[in-house]
Amino acid sequence: MSGEMNGARSLVRTLIDSGVEVCFTNPGTSEIHFVAALDAEPEMRAILGLFEGVVTGAADGYARMAAKPACTLLHLGPGLGNGLANLHNARRARVPLVNIVGEHATYHRHLDAPLTSDIKSIASAVSGWIRTSQDAQSVAKDGAEAVAAAYGPPGQVATLILPANTAWDAPGVPVQRIAPQTPPAPDDARVGDIARVLKDAGESASILMNGPVLSEEGLSLASRISVATGARLLTDTFVTRMARGAGRPVVWRVPYLGEEAAELLEGTRHLVLVGTKAPVSFFAYPGKPSELTPQGCTVHTLAEPAEDGLAAMAALVEALGATKVAPALADELRPDLPSGALDPKKIAQVVAHLLPENAIVMNEAATAGRPVPGFTAKSAPHDWMDLMGGAIGQGMPAATGAAVACPDRKVLCLQADGSAMYTVQALWTQAREELDVTTVIFSNRRYAILEMEYSRVGAGEPSAATRSLFDLSRPDLDWVGLARSMGVEGVRASTAEELARGLERGLRESGPYLVEAVLGG
Amino acid sequence: MSGEMNGARSLVRTLIDSGVEVCFTNPGTSEIHFVAALDAEPEMRAILGLFEGVVTGAADGYARMAAKPACTLLHLGPGLGNGLANLHNARRARVPLVNIVGEHATYHRHLDAPLTSDIKSIASAVSGWIRTSQDAQSVAKDGAEAVAAAYGPPGQVATLILPANTAWDAPGVPVQRIAPQTPPAPDDARVGDIARVLKDAGESASILMNGPVLSEEGLSLASRISVATGARLLTDTFVTRMARGAGRPVVWRVPYLGEEAAELLEGTRHLVLVGTKAPVSFFAYPGKPSELTPQGCTVHTLAEPAEDGLAAMAALVEALGATKVAPALADELRPDLPSGALDPKKIAQVVAHLLPENAIVMNEAATAGRPVPGFTAKSAPHDWMDLMGGAIGQGMPAATGAAVACPDRKVLCLQADGSAMYTVQALWTQAREELDVTTVIFSNRRYAILEMEYSRVGAGEPSAATRSLFDLSRPDLDWVGLARSMGVEGVRASTAEELARGLERGLRESGPYLVEAVLGG
Repeated sequence: MSGEMNGARSLVRTLIDSGVEVCFTNPGTSEIHFVAALDAEPEMRAILGLFEGVVTGAADGYARMAAKPACTLLHLGPGLGNGLANLHNARRARVPLVNIVGEHATYHRHLDAPLTSDIKSIASAVSGWIRTSQDAQSVAKDGAEAVAAAYGPPGQVATLILPANTAWDAPGVPVQRIAPQTPPAPDDARVGDIARVLKDAGESASILMNGPVLSEEGLSLASRISVATGARLLTDTFVTRMARGAGRPVVWRVPYLGEEAAELLEGTRHLVLVGTKAPVSFFAYPGKPSELTPQGCTVHTLAEPAEDGLAAMAALVEALGATKVAPALADELRPDLPSGALDPKKIAQVVAHLLPENAIVMNEAATAGRPVPGFTAKSAPHDWMDLMGGAIGQGMPAATGAAVACPDRKVLCLQADGSAMYTVQALWTQAREELDVTTVIFSNRRYAILEMEYSRVGAGEPSAATRSLFDLSRPDLDWVGLARSMGVEGVRASTAEELARGLERGLRESGPYLVEAVLGG
Repeated sequence: MSGEMNGARSLVRTLIDSGVEVCFTNPGTSEIHFVAALDAEPEMRAILGLFEGVVTGAADGYARMAAKPACTLLHLGPGLGNGLANLHNARRARVPLVNIVGEHATYHRHLDAPLTSDIKSIASAVSGWIRTSQDAQSVAKDGAEAVAAAYGPPGQVATLILPANTAWDAPGVPVQRIAPQTPPAPDDARVGDIARVLKDAGESASILMNGPVLSEEGLSLASRISVATGARLLTDTFVTRMARGAGRPVVWRVPYLGEEAAELLEGTRHLVLVGTKAPVSFFAYPGKPSELTPQGCTVHTLAEPAEDGLAAMAALVEALGATKVAPALADELRPDLPSGALDPKKIAQVVAHLLPENAIVMNEAATAGRPVPGFTAKSAPHDWMDLMGGAIGQGMPAATGAAVACPDRKVLCLQADGSAMYTVQALWTQAREELDVTTVIFSNRRYAILEMEYSRVGAGEPSAATRSLFDLSRPDLDWVGLARSMGVEGVRASTAEELARGLERGLRESGPYLVEAVLGG
């Protein structure tokens, strides 16, 4: 039965032919025919998450490292809802991602059975493309279009809603891959204008980047421009994926705090955007500006996120006559291993010292992790990924997905404890799939960012009652116990020596490992 | 500063004056002024959940037992998304619930900062009432209207979106409670018609109930009708809250499986609905009917969910001249304690034997828990709650909320392992708040329902690859370890004797406790 070319199988076949090889899922009854089709189409690797936030976060991490979409398989509106926060993050990361959301059979929907809900409304908050399949014959074509849509440009979440009878009816009709649109290069006039601006502006110009331009190739182009003109190189506070470390250009990130960002941007007269938009503060604060571009600064868009930022940078190098200019690359500079009781700076030093070559760093270390980008800037070369949409609980799932995409690379997940609890189930998938992820939990046992934000929003001093809402102690979470209970070995570290020992072990051995770095313990 | 009567404080004050005393929350920066207002208004109890699915599920369980709404406080669209599945369940349970969803300041929204999303779209899938506050002066009135709207009838989710500046601006203007609408009683003609039908139909009539009519009072009325006319008493497969056990009428529930439901309903010529609608199958299955009302059966609606089912039943008793009829009440009948290796039946027997008087049972035991309702039907009197919307991960959060509502009663949470993993963070809140919840994990280490459904949807026999998607072993979850790591003591049981010992301890001692009942271990 499962071998029949029904709607579900035609969809799986078409997804595979469109380059989608991994399905992160937590399926239910309405998705069973899709699951059954996986038997007949073994080229699709199915990976189970014990909660949909793991599933969608993994698809985000996978897309960043594989540079192509995975699909998710989600159980109706509630399954999509459970995955929504990490789909929000994926939307902000502009990664390609295909959701397959199961739905009641078309003739069952009007009966309003318990799991019926308005899936489209939920999907619309995160999806650039949504379609509900109408019959088995059109499912495959819908799937091929979903994959093409996911590529954008820029990358986006495409959601295909799959009523159960469109999956189980036959015949399904597999279709060929639909080529995604290629991102347009910006026109020559714009490149020429910006080249002239940069030549004149010198150090009063900054180039603010995000997206694919943060590859080694893109940064090398950016560095040539910087060397040739004096322009500063900046990234957004959070980056989708960035090549960093020794042998790559050093780039500053715009700080999270608006006042620090203002300080960094002060004196910038020309801001050139590549794959991003002008900087705004994460939240509004009473009496503080939301827009961070300094007064009197002119904003120039070299490449919108939907345009080919790499090609634009290459054209700009050309226009500046800088093709022969050598980029400024960082020498390796690893801090010494510190000693004694842990603090955020010491964690950063240990991580920077031990970071292995070609590692993938997933950063959701939040407040306690703030020193890490600075200390790792000249560590061994690595790729770095941040939480992009501010919806916490993305780090461990995304590390999981990145490890699926790059089985030959070590993934280091720098993870705040409060955020980690959101999608703690990710550890189980890491254990089941024997993924090569080492997780460092920044265990400060509180939502430290909220303590900081409390005074920043003008709320004064928190009382004991309020403070308890920012507090993760009473009881303390035992991270080593949580990990072990899901099949991941780990160790607790309260000193820099213990952290170095634990991290070394995790990085040396293959498979998942967790180190709880206890702060102020 | 936090003492100022700003929008946030006026809202908290008004919620309290409207009878809302508990706020389940996981706040963020945009909600900090609401948090600060809690300092100035200590009558509102704030309870932290480490994930929003815990927050919203707790509000559902609280509403069922307190018969009034709690509020949630959620962090923008992603926080609402994380809580969406249990809001879906709350919607299906028709309980009153007030969401306060923080949002960017009104002037910050258009900048499309990372956490910006379409909150209304997300909320619309679960909310019967939605409003975005426009300024600090209207926030309190919006809140009072949200509470009144939450009461329905029937109860529903009311979502108030609170831009940060409407919270921090002053002055806020607290307002009085707005009286909710009272549910109308159905008209006399309808009651008279149904009385005549029941008199003639005898045992070929069934009364299908859900909602407030399943209180001890409502069931007593129902039993008088049954004794007087021969009509059978039924409930939906899942009930919001039901008085059960010794001294209460015995009522059958419509089975989950369509074929078993059809068997139970066969021969029913008249189906009288009270607080529910005609039965439909949970999912569609190829070639099987979705509607479960037998052919030739006439459906009569005594009371819609929005009407006063209790008053309707009282009127029906009157119309039948059955006010003096004694209801048929169950004698206590507790199964003996079994022995040996656990199976689902033995778990049910142990639970039924030990169930303490006046306990609150939250049931999300799924497939392995199917024998429990039968064995507990004549146990010590208790209240019973089911997962209503089919979105798993509601049990432990709802048990948490029920324990907050009823600190003097023991809550017994019967919890499937796969579902438990969805919102496992609930255990931490139980530990922090020292809630009197004993959890039994039905640890069959698989999504057993999907194994069953696989063949029922006509997908044939699952392969090893497919079966692994329904499998929670590799690695096994260590439930005692998970609980301990979040501050909840527990024990593992593989035999009926061990389960009885563990359950006895949990029920005897105050505070949270967990027993992992390992099936087929």
